[in-house]
Amino acid sequence: MTNFSDKHPADIAEQLVELDTKDRNLSFLMLSGEKKAEVFPYFDLEVQQEIIKSMGDKELAEILNNIDPDDRTAFFESFPDDLIKHSINLLNEEEREIALNLIGYKEDCIARLMTPHYIQTKREKTVGDVIEHIKKYGKKAETLNFVYVIDDNNKLIDDLKIGQLLMSDSRTRIADLMDNDFVAITTTTPMEKALDIFEKYDRSALPIISEKGILVGIVTFDDILDKIKERDTEDIQKFGGVEGLDLSYVNTSLLELVKKRAGWLVVLFIGEMLTASAMGYFDDEIQKAVVLALFVPLIISSGGNTGSQAASLIIRAMALRELELKDWWYVMRKEILSGLLLGGILAAIGFLRILIWQKTGIYNYGEYWFAVAISVSVSLIFIVIWGTLSGSLIPFLLRRIGLDPATASAPFVATLVDVTGLIIYFSIAAIFLSGKLL
Amino acid sequence: MTNFSDKHPADIAEQLVELDTKDRNLSFLMLSGEKKAEVFPYFDLEVQQEIIKSMGDKELAEILNNIDPDDRTAFFESFPDDLIKHSINLLNEEEREIALNLIGYKEDCIARLMTPHYIQTKREKTVGDVIEHIKKYGKKAETLNFVYVIDDNNKLIDDLKIGQLLMSDSRTRIADLMDNDFVAITTTTPMEKALDIFEKYDRSALPIISEKGILVGIVTFDDILDKIKERDTEDIQKFGGVEGLDLSYVNTSLLELVKKRAGWLVVLFIGEMLTASAMGYFDDEIQKAVVLALFVPLIISSGGNTGSQAASLIIRAMALRELELKDWWYVMRKEILSGLLLGGILAAIGFLRILIWQKTGIYNYGEYWFAVAISVSVSLIFIVIWGTLSGSLIPFLLRRIGLDPATASAPFVATLVDVTGLIIYFSIAAIFLSGKLL
Repeated sequence: MTNFSDKHPADIAEQLVELDTKDRNLSFLMLSGEKKAEVFPYFDLEVQQEIIKSMGDKELAEILNNIDPDDRTAFFESFPDDLIKHSINLLNEEEREIALNLIGYKEDCIARLMTPHYIQTKREKTVGDVIEHIKKYGKKAETLNFVYVIDDNNKLIDDLKIGQLLMSDSRTRIADLMDNDFVAITTTTPMEKALDIFEKYDRSALPIISEKGILVGIVTFDDILDKIKERDTEDIQKFGGVEGLDLSYVNTSLLELVKKRAGWLVVLFIGEMLTASAMGYFDDEIQKAVVLALFVPLIISSGGNTGSQAASLIIRAMALRELELKDWWYVMRKEILSGLLLGGILAAIGFLRILIWQKTGIYNYGEYWFAVAISVSVSLIFIVIWGTLSGSLIPFLLRRIGLDPATASAPFVATLVDVTGLIIYFSIAAIFLSGKLL
Repeated sequence: MTNFSDKHPADIAEQLVELDTKDRNLSFLMLSGEKKAEVFPYFDLEVQQEIIKSMGDKELAEILNNIDPDDRTAFFESFPDDLIKHSINLLNEEEREIALNLIGYKEDCIARLMTPHYIQTKREKTVGDVIEHIKKYGKKAETLNFVYVIDDNNKLIDDLKIGQLLMSDSRTRIADLMDNDFVAITTTTPMEKALDIFEKYDRSALPIISEKGILVGIVTFDDILDKIKERDTEDIQKFGGVEGLDLSYVNTSLLELVKKRAGWLVVLFIGEMLTASAMGYFDDEIQKAVVLALFVPLIISSGGNTGSQAASLIIRAMALRELELKDWWYVMRKEILSGLLLGGILAAIGFLRILIWQKTGIYNYGEYWFAVAISVSVSLIFIVIWGTLSGSLIPFLLRRIGLDPATASAPFVATLVDVTGLIIYFSIAAIFLSGKLL
């Protein structure tokens, strides 16, 4: 048996995960009570659940009572209801109250990440009093960087850096250090908004207050870091056209993985069927001028590519709050111009391609090759503009109707542009080729 | 003029950005010297550069000497070389040495984010000594959560939580609190690896040591948070087929925006031209059976969609280190099965579509409609498997040859699958339709 006593909990967790389930459960049980609670939050949810299953109520109670409240809440979120009830009954009175309180908040509220373990004081206390208080209760506190000052109604009225206290004489009154200037988040603030506040103020912890200003807990940067990672993972997966996995790729079963992908895929497939209808509508033209069909994939994919470029830029800018709904007009102008320039470049290359192939005899596009080349080039310009516009404005549209802009996935934009792109292409070809091939 | 004195620097910066350039520069100059240095890092690079331009050497020196060293290094990165030299000459001796040291590290090393402002002590000191030291020098320290213990050769030998000190008697010797267990990052660690270490240990600050173990600085979570955001932004933009912007969408000029998009777009367009060649190769078949052309967009887009789903999952899992190079075989098996299931679903829907259209007379696919439907369905299965495989394995391939997996953008995978998909489709159709339509 390895001696784990002087290792960081994250390292112990990493080592235990390498073991097979039985050895892991056994080794975990042999850790001291305190170590158990320290190591436990570093496991994935699945491992946590396996370990819980292997334990009796006594060991479970030991862990649940010692684990930090914010980690416990996160853990409970994965429990079935009856197991939550059972677990809460294993808690001692104090921890039970904390747990019930935290579970009471909606799942996407910042309050779910709260811990009630922080240092608070009042304005009439002295620096010496606070240091004494820290000596007694500091062990449980998740951060000592800040001390929070409350009034007699438990309203938060200031936050003081620990440095300010350490640098003052121990007889200094807290009131003399206060500037009544602090940043706090209210309990019901949605997670995403709270992340913004954290990102803005560069604080390692922020106090959480009720609507009335009562200090109820703090949230520390490590939980925020996890949430930011989750948000970005979800955005990338959604943009790729997958519903958020919740679990990691490795821990998601094959069937679950297929389920999360099939939904969107079928929707896109049914949407894309319209291309078959559109092509069917133009089958006469294709029969007369097969040469037109040759460029279909090239033309529609160009719209899809520019569309997913635009969508990725806009979705990320919205996630980072660089763009708000009101900016759609600014974006639209910028993207029409971008589309015009990008479309122009592709049109020129496309024209050259047909010219060179025709002149060198690699392929014979027939008597009307010039009109074909013009049709392809002009279509490219319009379809690329249409692609950049769709890719950039659909995220706005989605947010406007209350959906996540990241739903405007690359496949979604590509599908939309494919169908409309075909219609644009064949309509433009009809203009340039009527009386010739058509 | 608003009174800014009691506002958080982030808020002051936000307010100043709203003003026009001239007013902003003026208001900024009127802030106290210390406030200037506090507010400055919260501006975007462009605003910072505008402000610098509006200042004389005296004001610039004031800011540069007071700003935190890690923020200063970040700022210098955007300077032209001669301006860096000029600015460094404005620093006082102590700050100049710090600045030169930090700039000496490679741009993607964690050391670039270092600040030398932390609290260190030695094993023979007492808790009281450390508190005294903090009283004198604590003001500049970026975090007081940890005190670092070094030996006589300046080697890092332990880190102590400030709580441990506060909870001990002031006569306690540091040596008695030590457990010789600490986490540190070496100066040359690449940024991405360092982010992993931060994410693993949930620390708000980590010490940076030289190869020989000498403590040279600390890195705090706020800089790490910025880097994680940058990494995820880059991944999303790359996945959308855009080179990393470095700047935000809003602050990127139209021409720059077009430049960052045109590169990839042209590469993809030239790749996609192969579809025109492939279709040209099969033009005889299309002439004989126009009905085949109708399903081209539907079939190739299905490959592209499943490919970008797979790519988004794998790229993110690799960024979060859930998947390593050695896992390619595991992923390949999982994706072949996923592809088979997803392809089967789409094949069934595709078959039904043709059956229903044919039977209800919406469209007449001709005498051999059944063989066409079978060709389409079988092609879908193969192309979807091909899509999931390409999307999932290309990121591995890219990492293997030393490129960023996120380069396997949705458009890139789609283009690859489009070209090969056409060949698969027409080959399969040739089997089922030879002697009939072909």
